[in-house]
Order: sequence, then C-alpha cells, then structure tokens
Amino acid sequence: MAEYFKDIKKVEYVGKESKDPLAFHYYDPERKIGNKTMEEHLRFSVAYWHTFTAEGRDMFGVESANREWNKFSDPLDKAYARCDAAFEFMSKLGVKYFCTHDRDLVDEQETLRETNKLLDKLVERIKERMKETGIKLLWGTSNLFTHPRFMQGAATSCDADIYAYAAAQVKKALEITKELNGENYVFWGGREGYETLLNTNMELELNNLANFLHMAVDYAKEIGFDGQFLIEPKPKEPTKHQYDFDVANSYAFLQKYDLDKYFKFNIEANHATLAGHTFQHELRYARINNILGSVDANMGDLLLGWDTDQFPTNVFENVLAMYEILKNGGIAPGGLNFDSHVRRPSYENIDLFYAHIAGMDAFALGLILANKILEDKVLEDFVEKRYNSFNEGMGKKIVDGRTNFKELEEYVLDKKVGVPKSGRQEYLENLLNLYIYE
Amino acid sequence: MAEYFKDIKKVEYVGKESKDPLAFHYYDPERKIGNKTMEEHLRFSVAYWHTFTAEGRDMFGVESANREWNKFSDPLDKAYARCDAAFEFMSKLGVKYFCTHDRDLVDEQETLRETNKLLDKLVERIKERMKETGIKLLWGTSNLFTHPRFMQGAATSCDADIYAYAAAQVKKALEITKELNGENYVFWGGREGYETLLNTNMELELNNLANFLHMAVDYAKEIGFDGQFLIEPKPKEPTKHQYDFDVANSYAFLQKYDLDKYFKFNIEANHATLAGHTFQHELRYARINNILGSVDANMGDLLLGWDTDQFPTNVFENVLAMYEILKNGGIAPGGLNFDSHVRRPSYENIDLFYAHIAGMDAFALGLILANKILEDKVLEDFVEKRYNSFNEGMGKKIVDGRTNFKELEEYVLDKKVGVPKSGRQEYLENLLNLYIYE
Amino acid sequence: MAEYFKDIKKVEYVGKESKDPLAFHYYDPERKIGNKTMEEHLRFSVAYWHTFTAEGRDMFGVESANREWNKFSDPLDKAYARCDAAFEFMSKLGVKYFCTHDRDLVDEQETLRETNKLLDKLVERIKERMKETGIKLLWGTSNLFTHPRFMQGAATSCDADIYAYAAAQVKKALEITKELNGENYVFWGGREGYETLLNTNMELELNNLANFLHMAVDYAKEIGFDGQFLIEPKPKEPTKHQYDFDVANSYAFLQKYDLDKYFKFNIEANHATLAGHTFQHELRYARINNILGSVDANMGDLLLGWDTDQFPTNVFENVLAMYEILKNGGIAPGGLNFDSHVRRPSYENIDLFYAHIAGMDAFALGLILANKILEDKVLEDFVEKRYNSFNEGMGKKIVDGRTNFKELEEYVLDKKVGVPKSGRQEYLENLLNLYIYE
Amino acid sequence: MAEYFKDIKKVEYVGKESKDPLAFHYYDPERKIGNKTMEEHLRFSVAYWHTFTAEGRDMFGVESANREWNKFSDPLDKAYARCDAAFEFMSKLGVKYFCTHDRDLVDEQETLRETNKLLDKLVERIKERMKETGIKLLWGTSNLFTHPRFMQGAATSCDADIYAYAAAQVKKALEITKELNGENYVFWGGREGYETLLNTNMELELNNLANFLHMAVDYAKEIGFDGQFLIEPKPKEPTKHQYDFDVANSYAFLQKYDLDKYFKFNIEANHATLAGHTFQHELRYARINNILGSVDANMGDLLLGWDTDQFPTNVFENVLAMYEILKNGGIAPGGLNFDSHVRRPSYENIDLFYAHIAGMDAFALGLILANKILEDKVLEDFVEKRYNSFNEGMGKKIVDGRTNFKELEEYVLDKKVGVPKSGRQEYLENLLNLYIYE
Ligand SMILES: [Co+2]
Ligand SMILES: [Co+2]
Ligand SMILES: [Co+2]
Ligand SMILES: [Co+2]
Ligand SMILES: [Co+2]
Ligand SMILES: [Co+2]
Ligand SMILES: [Co+2]
Ligand SMILES: [Co+2]
Repeated sequence: MAEYFKDIKKVEYVGKESKDPLAFHYYDPERKIGNKTMEEHLRFSVAYWHTFTAEGRDMFGVESANREWNKFSDPLDKAYARCDAAFEFMSKLGVKYFCTHDRDLVDEQETLRETNKLLDKLVERIKERMKETGIKLLWGTSNLFTHPRFMQGAATSCDADIYAYAAAQVKKALEITKELNGENYVFWGGREGYETLLNTNMELELNNLANFLHMAVDYAKEIGFDGQFLIEPKPKEPTKHQYDFDVANSYAFLQKYDLDKYFKFNIEANHATLAGHTFQHELRYARINNILGSVDANMGDLLLGWDTDQFPTNVFENVLAMYEILKNGGIAPGGLNFDSHVRRPSYENIDLFYAHIAGMDAFALGLILANKILEDKVLEDFVEKRYNSFNEGMGKKIVDGRTNFKELEEYVLDKKVGVPKSGRQEYLENLLNLYIYE
Repeated sequence: MAEYFKDIKKVEYVGKESKDPLAFHYYDPERKIGNKTMEEHLRFSVAYWHTFTAEGRDMFGVESANREWNKFSDPLDKAYARCDAAFEFMSKLGVKYFCTHDRDLVDEQETLRETNKLLDKLVERIKERMKETGIKLLWGTSNLFTHPRFMQGAATSCDADIYAYAAAQVKKALEITKELNGENYVFWGGREGYETLLNTNMELELNNLANFLHMAVDYAKEIGFDGQFLIEPKPKEPTKHQYDFDVANSYAFLQKYDLDKYFKFNIEANHATLAGHTFQHELRYARINNILGSVDANMGDLLLGWDTDQFPTNVFENVLAMYEILKNGGIAPGGLNFDSHVRRPSYENIDLFYAHIAGMDAFALGLILANKILEDKVLEDFVEKRYNSFNEGMGKKIVDGRTNFKELEEYVLDKKVGVPKSGRQEYLENLLNLYIYE
Repeated sequence: MAEYFKDIKKVEYVGKESKDPLAFHYYDPERKIGNKTMEEHLRFSVAYWHTFTAEGRDMFGVESANREWNKFSDPLDKAYARCDAAFEFMSKLGVKYFCTHDRDLVDEQETLRETNKLLDKLVERIKERMKETGIKLLWGTSNLFTHPRFMQGAATSCDADIYAYAAAQVKKALEITKELNGENYVFWGGREGYETLLNTNMELELNNLANFLHMAVDYAKEIGFDGQFLIEPKPKEPTKHQYDFDVANSYAFLQKYDLDKYFKFNIEANHATLAGHTFQHELRYARINNILGSVDANMGDLLLGWDTDQFPTNVFENVLAMYEILKNGGIAPGGLNFDSHVRRPSYENIDLFYAHIAGMDAFALGLILANKILEDKVLEDFVEKRYNSFNEGMGKKIVDGRTNFKELEEYVLDKKVGVPKSGRQEYLENLLNLYIYE
Repeated sequence: MAEYFKDIKKVEYVGKESKDPLAFHYYDPERKIGNKTMEEHLRFSVAYWHTFTAEGRDMFGVESANREWNKFSDPLDKAYARCDAAFEFMSKLGVKYFCTHDRDLVDEQETLRETNKLLDKLVERIKERMKETGIKLLWGTSNLFTHPRFMQGAATSCDADIYAYAAAQVKKALEITKELNGENYVFWGGREGYETLLNTNMELELNNLANFLHMAVDYAKEIGFDGQFLIEPKPKEPTKHQYDFDVANSYAFLQKYDLDKYFKFNIEANHATLAGHTFQHELRYARINNILGSVDANMGDLLLGWDTDQFPTNVFENVLAMYEILKNGGIAPGGLNFDSHVRRPSYENIDLFYAHIAGMDAFALGLILANKILEDKVLEDFVEKRYNSFNEGMGKKIVDGRTNFKELEEYVLDKKVGVPKSGRQEYLENLLNLYIYE
C-alpha cells in the first residue's frame, strides 16, 4: 500500500514546553477532563472533502495543491488511493472520526446506477480501513450542489426530475451511512434557496423541501438507520439566499412541517457569523432548545463576507464553544468536525498536519479552560445572582406563569421601580481573561 | 388653537408634470388601482415618535430641530401641544393613520399611576382630534426601551420588578389602544436580548417573554381588544443581540410557545436588511406563512450598519414591496407606517412635509407599477412555466407527498437527468425595468 | 466560419413600447445626448473573460455553461474559435469595444516563450476581426492571479522568480495592447496583498510593487505605447487584504512613489461597495482629483460579501454614475466595460445577450436621465446656493487661503453663529424621483 | 475636596494568582520589558469624555449612569467637580495621561468669548491637579460635532461662519493644549464628510479642510506649540461618509495638500474594523509609512455596524497591536488612550474601574507576549526566510530598482517558474498560540 505522508510519524502529545509543530501541546487524548477523556469530549473528525478531495481552487485561481492520491485517471483507482491516503492521514493524526459526502468518495459517473456501483466498491474498501484503524464515520451526507444539475437547488429545484435525482442520491447516501455505522446524517442545503425572488415560488419550494425531509425520515426508518438527522444552516453562499439561514430560521421550518422531532443541528462557526450571530449564540440557542447535534469546527474572518472555513485557532472562541458543549452534557453522538481547509498558499501535504494540529490543540485548550471556568462556577454564580429576584415572590409567579397583567399592575402602580443590577460585562471579560491566561 | 405649520396648505395631488415639492405627483388618494383606491391600498401612517417627539439627536450630537410644540414646561401643556401639532400635520398631509408609543404622548411621571393619569387626559384630547379629522390609530405600542429601568430588557429583564413594571405599562397601552380603536398592537423588543452571553440566562429570559406575551393575549381578550397583535423583528441595535432577530427567528419562538395563532408581523425594511435579508424576502416569507401583518415603511443604507430609518424614496424597492402586499391581498388591518425620520440636517418643519411626501409618492409609484406588473402577469407566467414539471406525473406526486425515495430512485436510476431551465435573472430584471421606466 | 449564435440577429433599437428582450429600448447608438451620440458617451465594452472564457464555476459548483467555442482540445483551435465567437457576439450586440487579459485569449503553455508564440498567432486573428468589424480594444491587462504560481502575489510575490515572470507577462501584454491599439492598460492586483500579516513584509512588497509599475511605465515609453495606465482597486477577494483597497488607498501609494502622474483609475461598482463606498463616491473622488480613467460597469449585491459582478440593471445607480461621468466631461479614453457575468443559472448563450442588453439599456437610461438632471441644473443650483457664503467676504478669504485662525476668531468671538441651511436630503431625493420617473 | 470614589483604594499590581477585580494581574508599571518599564511602553491615557462627561445615552435610551460630579447646575461648579473626579479616578487607577476635547471640560456658553473665559478658569484648576498628581495631557482636541451648528460639518461646513467658528474653537484648543503641555493634538472629523452626495461640493469641502489644517499648523508655529498633530480616521458614523475614511485615505489627502510632513495618525481599533481593516493592518500601514502617532485603545464588535468603543479585553488582538508598536520603536509621544466606554448596563462608578483595569491588564499581557514573540524572532525568522530570494541575484536587482522588463523577460522566458514556498498560515497561528498560552 502506497504511503502518502512518508515523512510524518504518528502525532504525539508532547506538552506545552516543546515547540515541535508536528506534535500536540494541549491535546492529550487520554487525559481526563471531568469524567471523560479529552478524546471522548472532543470527538474530532476530519472532513474528507476539504482534506482529501479538494485542492485549493478559489474564485480567481485554479488548484494550488497537487495531491498524489488524486492523480489517477481510473475513477476506482483514484477513489481507492484517496481512501488510503485518508486513513493514513487520520491514523497518523490520531483522529477517530471522519465525515464525507457521497461525491467525495467517488466521481460521478454517467448514470446514477453506475455511480452507485462504484460507491459500493469503495464502501468495501472503507469498511476494511475502518476496521483496521478503528476510525469511525461521524456523519454522512450527499453532495447536492456541485453538479450543474443542482444549479437551482435539489430538494427545492424548479425541476421535478432533478428533485427525484436528489432524492435517489440521498437514499443511497443513507444506505452507505448505515452500512458504515455513521452516527449522524447531515443536510446542508447550499443551493436550497434562491438567486432572485423574481423567478421563485418560495412556497412550493419549501413545501417540497418538507416532503423531501419527511421521505428521508421514512426511508431511514425503513432501513433501520437510527443515526441522528442534522440540518446545517448557512445563510448564503453559494446561493444568494439559503432557506436554512440560521438555526432559528430552520427551527421555524421544522416546527411548521412537524419535522422538529426528527432533526437537530450541525452548527458551523463560520456559518453562524455569516448569519450575523456569534458561534456561541447559535450553540446556546440550540442547546436551550435541545437541538444541538454536532459542530463544524472552523472559524471565519469577520472582515470577509464569504465562508473562509479556516482552522479554528482562536482559543478564546473555542473556550466559549466548549463552555456551551459542556453545559449541553457533551456533543455525542455528534462531534467536532473540522469543516476547515488550509489556506490556498498552504499547499503542501505537511500543511494538512500543521492545520489539524493547530485546530486540535486550540480546541483542547478550549476544553481545558471552559471546564475550569465551569468547575469554579465563575459565570454560573454571577448569573444565578443576577436573576435571583425570580426565585421567590412575584418573580417566582412570573416564571411559573401564575400571574397576570392586573396583578402586576397593582404590584408596581405606586412603586418606585429602579434600575437592575449592573451587567458587569467588563468585569466578567476581565475575569475570563484571568482564567484563560492564568 | 395654535397653528404650527402656518405656511403649509393641504398637500394636494397635482400630477407628475409639476415639480412643486409640496404636492403629490403620484399619490392620488381617490385613484382606483384595481378595485381599491390608492388610499385604501396604502393605508399610510405617520409615526408619532419620529415626527413629533424626537428632534434629531444622534450618538455624537444633540437635537438639531427645535419643535415649537415641545417647548412647554408643563407636561400636559406639552402633550396637548404635540398632539395638536400632530393632527394639524397629518390633516395637511392627508394621512389617515398614526402610530404611537405610550411615552410619545406624555412624559413619564414619578409613578406609573401619575403617568397613567396624564395619559388619560391626553387620550381625551386625541379622541377629539380623531373625531374632528377622521384620522385613526393604526397601532399602539409601549416604549420599553428608553427609560434606564429597561437598560437590560423589559419582558426579558433580569429583575422581576422591572418585568412587572413593563407588564403594567403594556396593560395600560392596550387599554389606550382599545379606547382609541387602534387596529393593531405592536411589540418591538429593542432591549429584549443581551449585551453579552456571559451574564445571560437565555432560557429563563425567553420563557419569561413567552409568559409576558400570553398575559398580553389574555388581557386583550379580557378587555375585548380584538386588534391584531404584531411582532416587529430587529436583529440588533440598541442591544447587541435581539431575540426577535428576523421574522423566521420570531416565528420559531411563537410556534414553540403556542403563540403563533395570536401574532403576525410588522416588518420594517431597515430591520430586514440589518438581519441580512431584503425587505421583499421578509415580506414574502411572512406572506406565504400567512403572518404578514403590517409594514414599517422606510429604507436603510446598506453601507451603514445601523438603523438609519430613512424615508423610503427608493422606488424600485417599493415596487417589490407592493408586489408582495398586492399578492397578500392587501395589508389591512395593517398599513404602511413611516417609521422614518428626517436626516439630522433636515431640521426644519417643512422638511417633515418634504420627507413624507417623498415617501408617499415613492410608494404610490410602487403601487402603480407593481399593479401593472401583476396585471400583465409578467412574473406569474414566467414562474408558472418554470415549475411546470410539478404540475403532473412524478412532479405532481412529489408536491402531493404521494411518493417515496424508492420510487424516486427507480425513476432516475438509469435516466440522464440534465439541468433545469435557465433562471433568466437578467432577462427578468430587464423586463422589470421596461415596466418601471416605460 | 462557424456561427455560434445562429438564432440571434443584430440587436436593434426598437424603442420603449416594445417588450422584445432581444432589442434595445433605450440604447439608440446614434441618438444625440448633448453634443455626443449615445455610443460616444457610453463606449460600452464586452469583457472577454466573463463572456467567452469563463463558464459559470463557483466556489461550490463546477461550470454550468457549455460554450461550444471552448470545446476544442488544440489550444490554438480553441483560441481561434473563442475569438470568432467573441467577434460574432460583439457584432450582433453592436458593442464597439472589448477588454481582455492575456490568458483569456490563449491557454498558458509550458514556457512563457511558447505561450507568447501562441499569443502572437491569436493576435493576428484578432487584428483581422477588428478590421472586419470595427471593434476596438478598450484595454488590455495581464492575468496574474489564476495560475498557482501567483498564489501569494505577482508584483508583490515573496519569490523573485515569480516577480520576474509577472514582469515578463506584463511586458508581453503591453506589446499586444499596443499592437491592437488598445486605448488603456489596466492593473488589477487581485493577489497583490496578503492572507495574513504574520508572514508578510508589507514594506518590501509595496516597494517592489512600485518598482514594477515604474518598469511598466518605462517599457511603455520605450515601445511607444501611449495608452492610459489604470489601477483597478478592490479591497479583498480573492486575497484577504488587497493593497489597492479603494481609489484613495491606491492614490496614496501612487503619490508616495511618484507614480501619480502616470496612472488613473478603472473604477468598478462592485469593488466600490466591497470597500464600503458607493459607486458614485469612488467616481466623484476620482473625478475631483482628475484621476477618473474608466469604469467596470456592473453591480453588486450589498447583502452579499463577495464580488457578484452582476449586470448593472439598477437604473438609479446608473443615473448617479452617468452624472459623475458627464461632469467629468466624459469617460474617454476609458469606457464602460461590462465586468459582469451572467448568474450561474443563466447558462444559455442567449442569456449572454439578455444580460448585455439589460446592462446597456439600463446605462442608456442612466445617461438620458443624468443629462436631463444636469441640463436643468437640478442639483447644481441647489449646491451653488448651499455654499454661497463662500462666494464673498470671509467665506471667500477662507476658500482663497487668505485668512488665519486669529482673524477667524475675531470674526466669531462675540457672534451668534447659528446652524447651516437645511440639507434637504429628502427634498432632493424626491426631486430626483420626479426626473427619473417622469 | 469631595471624594467621589470613596470605597476604592489605589489599584495595585497583585500578580496573576489573585482574582481581585480591583487590582492589576499583569500590569506592573515598574516591571521592565526590554529596556523600558511597562508604564513607559504603554503610556495609558483615560478619555475624559467617555469616563467623566458622558453617562451612557444610546440611540434608543437616555443616560443610564448618574455621575455625582455632573449634577451641579452652575457650569463652573460642574466643571470643577468633574475635574476633581477625573483626577481622583486617574490617581487611584494609576494612569499618567488623559485626553480631552474642549467641550468635555466645560459646557458651551452663549458666545465663544464666554466659553473661553470659563475654559481659562478650568484650565487653572487642571494645572493644579496635574501638578499635584503628576498626570499629563496626552492630547487635546476640539469637539466640532456635538453642537447643532456642526450638523453639516465644521472645517467642511457649507457655511462660512460655522467654518470660522470651528477655526476659532481649534485656535483656543491649541492654546489650552500648549498651556497644559499636551504632547499631541488630534483632529477627528466625525462630521467632516457628507450625508448625501446630492447636495455636496466635495471638492470645495476638501480644499477648505486643507486650508483649515494649514492654518492650524501655522498657528501652532506662531504660539510655539510643538506637539505632534494627529488625524484620527473613521469611515462613517455619525456621518454617512467621512473623508478621513482610513489611514490610507487620509494619507492620500495629506500628500495631495502638502500636509504629510505635519501629521501622523491616531489609530483607533474600532475605526479600523469599521473601515474593513484589522487594527493590526492600520498600525502596520502607518508604521511602514512612518506615520504611526498614537492609538485609541478599544475594541469593536465585528458583528455590529457601529462604533461600540468597548474596553480592549481581547488579548490576542492586543498582542498583534503591541507587536506593531514595539516594531515601531514605541508609541511616544503618543500613547494608548482608552477611547472606550463602559457598556450602558455597567452604569456604576465601580464599573469604570473594572473596565479600565480590564483594558490595562489585557494590554499589559499584549505587551509581555508581543515582546516574547519579538525576542525569539518567531515571525522575523520566518519572514526573513520567506523573502530570501530578494537578497541576492535578480531578486536584489528588483529590490534595488536596477532591472527592467526586458531583462526580467530574458530571465524567465524559458524557465520553469514554479510556485512559492508555502505560506504556512496555520503553522504560524499555532506557533503564536504556543507563545500566548504557554
Ligand atoms: Co460546514
Ligand atoms: Co463553511
Ligand atoms: Co420600526
Ligand atoms: Co428602524
Ligand atoms: Co468585480
Ligand atoms: Co473589474
Ligand atoms: Co477614537
Ligand atoms: Co470609536
């Protein structure tokens, strides 16, 4: 078997004294944080598409990387080679999960039947590699956006045949995900939306989308796939407006169409900020609504208006994310999938290692620090006190829904009602810094 | 009675040949567009706060306007004078509706009881003026954001007494709105959100907000107020993050808390764009979900990141807005409320006329042109054709929810499924221009 | 010779009564506006890259269009076919100018020498077609951003050999531009900037860039190319930060390095808005500094954070742009180049016609309306009056630089200095609407 | 003398083990970093306006804070009280500089003469306090934006009398700044720009602005004020478009009008991001052009579109800022002025301490970490290597401007010119984290 990363040994934890860029300085998989190991908490996953399939194209430039495993002309040879490279990479990196679209695995063929045949062969190879390495499938998904057929949507296409094609693709992707014991299945609707309202029947499209998701739920039941269904929201790009704009937009849709009991969310940091929210906001919103499913761990550049999908090296943001995840009781059966790609100038294979290590260490730090903040109840105690007027008396009645406008009016009609306690934002930011840089 | 706009006569329709800036060139209230008059279609409303109460303060500057009617030291004298100015202005302008917050009408007094007494007196005066002029109340609302008491929210305050105070304020505002035959009641939650998640119990706050709205619904029933309840979403400003981010965010909330049957939406153009949507998108989304209630007719500046609330002089945008409103079967019992203020340098009283006329003419044009586009089925025919594969066969089964993934797979497994019909965006944009500039 | 647009006849002016989408409704090339024809005013140009070379790829999808002329495997065959298609298209459209990068014309070969040979052959063909059709080259430029070699810049590369290669490419592009009597030469520095400051020597890069431009100026002199050099600013995309951020940023650079006498600006609407300016702002700024050279006529979507390069169908914006151009005394030797591409779903050849027609008609309207506004001195008279305190007395001394702080203090020390005249923004917006929709 | 912060003792350095929020954990003024103390490096300054004059108003709410020192009705009493509170605060905080506008010190009176008289009295008090405490004036400036007179600009007003008034105000502010031994004088042109181009003579306004600045330079010479003149750029807010958009925009202006030798820049973090740049970018750009003068140390919220002026608690950003400042050889005679205000809900006096401490500690950390990164040449070595092809041969000739297009073409015509070295962004981000969280 070809070795694609010859100069790279298994990446090991060496601690923070070393500056070795091919080792972990904070991520120590076996280290216990609370009652789980770091590996159990973080459930890192490699994104097959960014790391093995794509090669650094952007809107103004062709591929900058030349991955050896993609150079085969025969589609099956290429698929095998890419698969081998993937499992070698993940083994050396020590990541136990991956995520993939159907079309990352094999190139599309003339007919769906032929593509599916190729997929079946590749799935056998993947199963072998999974068995050998212990690496698992975090989630599967279907690419319904790259082929020109989907230029105007898939489950919201204006064309019934294309809708049918998309449905058939998801059917197969569900089967594969089940076959590989995938723990979740994700819908990212990058073309489910519109370029212009002038030509769009939004109502029909949304109804069709709801039917599509119901069929997916039904088919999963039929084949016994019991992984978690996830929606990954993104407000725009590639489409001018995408229906799964943010978690709340999608949650409104799921509720309206009685789909909310079947779906949770895969929240991506960069998609959160494109929608005008912080990453933490989307996590918090999902958490309190009990719909936080999984995370696409990356970061965006808030001065840029597109999805840069950078490796998540911002420790501060990762602390806030891990804080929500710990409060959620963990992220399983979801995980932290690096939906991140190396910058176009970081075109060497070794950059793939540097980048994942950077993200893993930065999230390990996030975990360590968030756990410390939680254990010391730094924020919890403050918040508890801030809202303590709701713990008894009229406040308690409000919370319990046992009062009404008349009673409340009487309560305040002649009262001098002053201002609330100071919000103390700067105090809290400072306190957080003391924990993070201690 | 004092006359505040002495040099201004009633604004009349003069047609588009004239360049008289104190006359209407497109807005001809009696002109029939389809089966309704322009006045019936447009239901224009003046915003009491922007036009009569506020005086042009901004973050870096004090008031630029010096309205005579606000110069009284006695609070009742001031309230009466402002009221008289308002009705004189609206009469001369020929607008038949106004909207108001409780605190636009009278200044807040030491206790709620005293403020309410003052309000009662003022309401008598307003009723007289309404009777004299035929002007009606489009909607009432309560100002729960200006007083320091509300610095950290009202129905989502961290303090139970402040929550109670807010409830009592809304109780009174509902009573006044009923007393004045207001046709709607609006909630704009400008401080219902958070400055920082570090100190925020989002779950408690949202639960409390839901209880608050349920109490409002209950109290309205109790007093027999049968106007439409409306939520006005805005994503941010003054607060870092507001819970009523956009229509869909709020709709998710309403559904979750079983409030969706009681509320529709008051959609503001500038709030739409602050949330990353076009105005038309928010209108369309509300329309197809049957929750389009009313409109705050203004425009923003997309290169600025705050709510500029400009008078809506962009005819093209108004065409798209009126297109959605016509498709909605009209906006009643809502209306087009000018939640717009003159630019700070437009500080003279006469600018209030120029600005409202500009907005009214630009929306009248929007109505005329949108109606023409609809009558000729310019977009309708195109859209019908674009989606016609869903009218029969497999497409029809998809729409009707009578198929499944297996059947759809069979249907396409060996089929060459090509690309959809061209989206023709540029063609449609050109066609629209031909209608608009004909 | 192959005919690529068989079903299309020459696009003719038919006037605004017709709704024929393959005809002009406002653009009447021979019609006189002031003392020039529309054709002379507008100097429309087709962008070779968007219309003939590119095929609709985006960040998440492959090409959606399948242009027949690009299907040849032999590079020269392909280059000839594309050239033939281009001249057929432009002839039928009635556009008299085109713009091109070197790499739009022919594919890059193994060595620069070979590419240049191919270019020489193609240039002969182009010259023939130019002679046959009367179509001219508005500007030439060099593509220094698509090839992976330029992933980290060209004239600001971190690698001297790549810098040299870029220089050699520009040398050849200048020769070709001269050979084809190009009237301008453009530098768009899409990769001249940085992805991260962490690895960047900004000072060295900017010095090198200045040397590069000086060498270009020197070489132009040497070969007798006397076209106008132009910088096209863009703040970001594809690079995180581009040095030619906006006109003023570039103007600071040009002044610092004594390049300002050799360069003017090619201003693109979408790049203006990405930099936080209106299109009109950039035009105005360039105009009053006498550095307005040419225009990339397109429009962006201000709710999207990337360069959508849409066809400029927004008439209102075009009025403001043409207003600046008329005040500039015209745009020659520059022109209005459609740096615009059809939306990805508008993939048919006929959409290329619809789109250019849409842009041409919308700019023709812009010209007609801007000219009317100027002739009636609608804004001029207002502005003259607004600043009239500077026409005499102390105001005149201020303008002439003949006073000082002491004299000015004496002048106001005991004076009641009030507020300026109202800015009348709403009045002016309304007035403009009256002109535009009359 | 009244004591306004009774419960607060002098804030001391206690080290990072303590969590006392009224002590410094990283800022140890006497600690040497390199060859200067922290105090000498950081030159912290308190902003008189945010901390002592303003009280938490926002666009939708009145003042949330009730500062005792502002409650006096007599203007001189108020001015004295505010001054006393300021010096008490700064002494307890241990900050050695402050910055102020003329109108922060005393309220404006009926005439300029009267205001100036009041100012003279207050200046005497300030001088006393400065002497007693050793606190110095970092920079003075004039408020030319709050009064309605300046609603349409000051040095770019459309009204000559207002221009004269502004000039007289700056004259006095220069005198005061000299009297107080101010080390710099700042121009922030918050209203120097336009609301709409429709009514604006941009050319006249910019010429007048240039004359204004020349007069300021002349008058400074006349009175012997030899502090550094600084421009503080900001792209928008309160005005739709401000001429001093960013450093480069202003630098173009300064060069054009021969003002560049007299002015450097006061760079504010939040203004940088509003203009689409990182704070580090603006610092770097100024540094390499030798125009970095001083810093307004705050931070913005990139998801909000207005100037939030938050206390700079983001340590990572502060590291990058201090990196540029150290590379600049320090910031003197400028400093780090906290142009920051407490959030509106942080309304208590003690929050003023929490907030300044948060900013001081976070910048002290920035200094410590940036110094470590520089001492280890972490980035320097990488950058040196990245560009090493410019150290000899053709690269050296390029840098020295000793080559030309012909020579460069010969050099590459038959050469296989590959891609540059990997940019290694992720590697560098990881490395930086290792330094920051070590
Ligand atoms: Co993702
Ligand atoms: Co993404
Ligand atoms: Co509103
Ligand atoms: Co608004
Ligand atoms: Co562009
Ligand atoms: Co361009
Ligand atoms: Co500042
Ligand atoms: Co600021």
